[in-house]
Amino acid sequence: MKTTRLEAFSDGVLAIIITIMVLELKVPHAVDLAALKPLLPVLLSYVLSFIYIGIYWNNHHHLFQAAKEVSGGILWANLHLLFWLSLFPFTTGWMGENHLASTPTAVYGFVLLMAAIAYLILERAIVAKEGRDSFVARAIGPDWKGKLSPLLYLAAIPLAFVSPLIASGLYVFAAFLWFIPDRRIERALEKREE
Amino acid sequence: MKTTRLEAFSDGVLAIIITIMVLELKVPHAVDLAALKPLLPVLLSYVLSFIYIGIYWNNHHHLFQAAKEVSGGILWANLHLLFWLSLFPFTTGWMGENHLASTPTAVYGFVLLMAAIAYLILERAIVAKEGRDSFVARAIGPDWKGKLSPLLYLAAIPLAFVSPLIASGLYVFAAFLWFIPDRRIERALEKREE
Amino acid sequence: MKTTRLEAFSDGVLAIIITIMVLELKVPHAVDLAALKPLLPVLLSYVLSFIYIGIYWNNHHHLFQAAKEVSGGILWANLHLLFWLSLFPFTTGWMGENHLASTPTAVYGFVLLMAAIAYLILERAIVAKEGRDSFVARAIGPDWKGKLSPLLYLAAIPLAFVSPLIASGLYVFAAFLWFIPDRRIERALEKREE
Amino acid sequence: MKTTRLEAFSDGVLAIIITIMVLELKVPHAVDLAALKPLLPVLLSYVLSFIYIGIYWNNHHHLFQAAKEVSGGILWANLHLLFWLSLFPFTTGWMGENHLASTPTAVYGFVLLMAAIAYLILERAIVAKEGRDSFVARAIGPDWKGKLSPLLYLAAIPLAFVSPLIASGLYVFAAFLWFIPDRRIERALEKREE
Repeated sequence: MKTTRLEAFSDGVLAIIITIMVLELKVPHAVDLAALKPLLPVLLSYVLSFIYIGIYWNNHHHLFQAAKEVSGGILWANLHLLFWLSLFPFTTGWMGENHLASTPTAVYGFVLLMAAIAYLILERAIVAKEGRDSFVARAIGPDWKGKLSPLLYLAAIPLAFVSPLIASGLYVFAAFLWFIPDRRIERALEKREE
Repeated sequence: MKTTRLEAFSDGVLAIIITIMVLELKVPHAVDLAALKPLLPVLLSYVLSFIYIGIYWNNHHHLFQAAKEVSGGILWANLHLLFWLSLFPFTTGWMGENHLASTPTAVYGFVLLMAAIAYLILERAIVAKEGRDSFVARAIGPDWKGKLSPLLYLAAIPLAFVSPLIASGLYVFAAFLWFIPDRRIERALEKREE
Repeated sequence: MKTTRLEAFSDGVLAIIITIMVLELKVPHAVDLAALKPLLPVLLSYVLSFIYIGIYWNNHHHLFQAAKEVSGGILWANLHLLFWLSLFPFTTGWMGENHLASTPTAVYGFVLLMAAIAYLILERAIVAKEGRDSFVARAIGPDWKGKLSPLLYLAAIPLAFVSPLIASGLYVFAAFLWFIPDRRIERALEKREE
Repeated sequence: MKTTRLEAFSDGVLAIIITIMVLELKVPHAVDLAALKPLLPVLLSYVLSFIYIGIYWNNHHHLFQAAKEVSGGILWANLHLLFWLSLFPFTTGWMGENHLASTPTAVYGFVLLMAAIAYLILERAIVAKEGRDSFVARAIGPDWKGKLSPLLYLAAIPLAFVSPLIASGLYVFAAFLWFIPDRRIERALEKREE
């Protein structure tokens, strides 16, 4: 089985998740700028989640450029990842509407954690299918970012009950890590072409 | 006519159905973990429906990998299937919000039943187009799972009025059946390549 | 410019329209079958609109299988069609929730009419681009269905104020016309392949 | 990396944005034509935003037909553009529901401005990747429309507090500019084929 249709379906789901989150930004009844002020935390948590879905789409895109084909196991590992990502609109809305209250901030981190684990499982499923010496396995490499992020989320969950600000700072920091250009797979793809 | 655009359209509809269901998980006003408790049955029925849509996407994916081309009849058989699947967000929300009350649980099963029948019709339409000796007809085979599942749903509908728990247990069991790796079409595809 | 991306975008919009309509089926609070009764007209108008979007998708699919490439004018003619189709969820909800009241039924017909005209404009734009002797022009042919349907809608709009039932009967009849297999473009495509 | 999946994802997001905006057209409870009157400004701002998303899709389509491949920077520049476009349903709803009140009209212009800037950044990112002498760089050319539009939005924002009508007139005028067929990239593509 080719990867194209799995990619198309995932693109569809990710596109909808990223766009549905904006529905939590409810149109206010008042018409002055002050009416936007209570929406600011909702907007900020939307920005954070938008960046996260963007990161997942980016990584997913790279991963399946390197992978050759999919098996039943990979299809389900991918659906498992999409399931946790589909909960982002809910946790984003809950955290944003309650100005970073402790429990919603912790639950936001929990869903981030589960999505990160689901991504690692997806990588494993692909490596299991194509072999440890396959091109995709070498392109993934040790993936220290993929392994560090869940640890950050795991630390942030209890911290949310001490200080939601520190917890959300960790979420921002973990997102920032992924921003630092990591051209691992890109470079591997370029090399292969040569 | 090639199958690509039918697949793209179906992917789009399935991606939206799977994501729209999550909108039934309404963001609570309270900010403690207890606020999530009434959402638990909604979440559980979301998980069940997510898995069902995943199963349909999986099977659909396999089916159209084996099929060669589409006719007008196949387009409509496919739309018929998508129609019943599009009712999942409604029945999932109704069952979930009412903690497995009898009627919503029975109606959930009725839509599952209609979707299963629609899938069988779609398979027949494809076999009718490509012939009983075609590659796709042999790949589908007797499809005992496709024929057993509607019987399970049919049994669950009246049972929902006796015990909604048994009925939903049957829905879970039928979903579980599809999880057991059934590499029928995959194997047929691999053989063809050789 | 190739037709692929226009088709992908249109597929996306049509997939969302067809799925978003189901959101008008609001989950009832009661848990007995009687709770579904007031939803019946909503469901019926959903079925009708689902079939209409299906018909448009079918025809669009066939049209762009025959067309070779797109121009700026075709892109806008296509967006114009999608605009009117995007109003279907609104008119469907309005007509369904008000049990076929006169004005909503007439407005439903007005949007059907505008969509039908937009489709004719799209056909013209494609023929203008590819020429009257092009393959696509001959595949479209006189398109009597495309020209009869707007007349039916035009008749139904004033009739909705006399009898909404007759008006909606005309909508059903027009949809039925498209169901009668019309293998015009399909046959033309098959011929070309030979 | 090929441009296909970036295009597919963008198509998905744009298709959802364009369709989700229509949800602001809430189904009225009354059943006479008068019930549609308060919806008129909502409908008009929907039409304007529909055209804007259509313009962005058109330009995006042309841009990536000329571009050859994408880098990490281009992926993020594209997501940045999609972020601002994803706010259109919110600003469209706010402006439409408040009959062109000053602040919502100014905020609508602000999001238009940010989207226009994001588009310029995307163009730069592509030119930076492919080089100033690349085909895509020459196809983009000086892009005076892309540079004039943000100036118009910038002028409209303060003007919205003097006269929202003039401000929205500027939005309509800027959209109109893009309607004038500008076959720059199309012509360049045709030339290349020859």
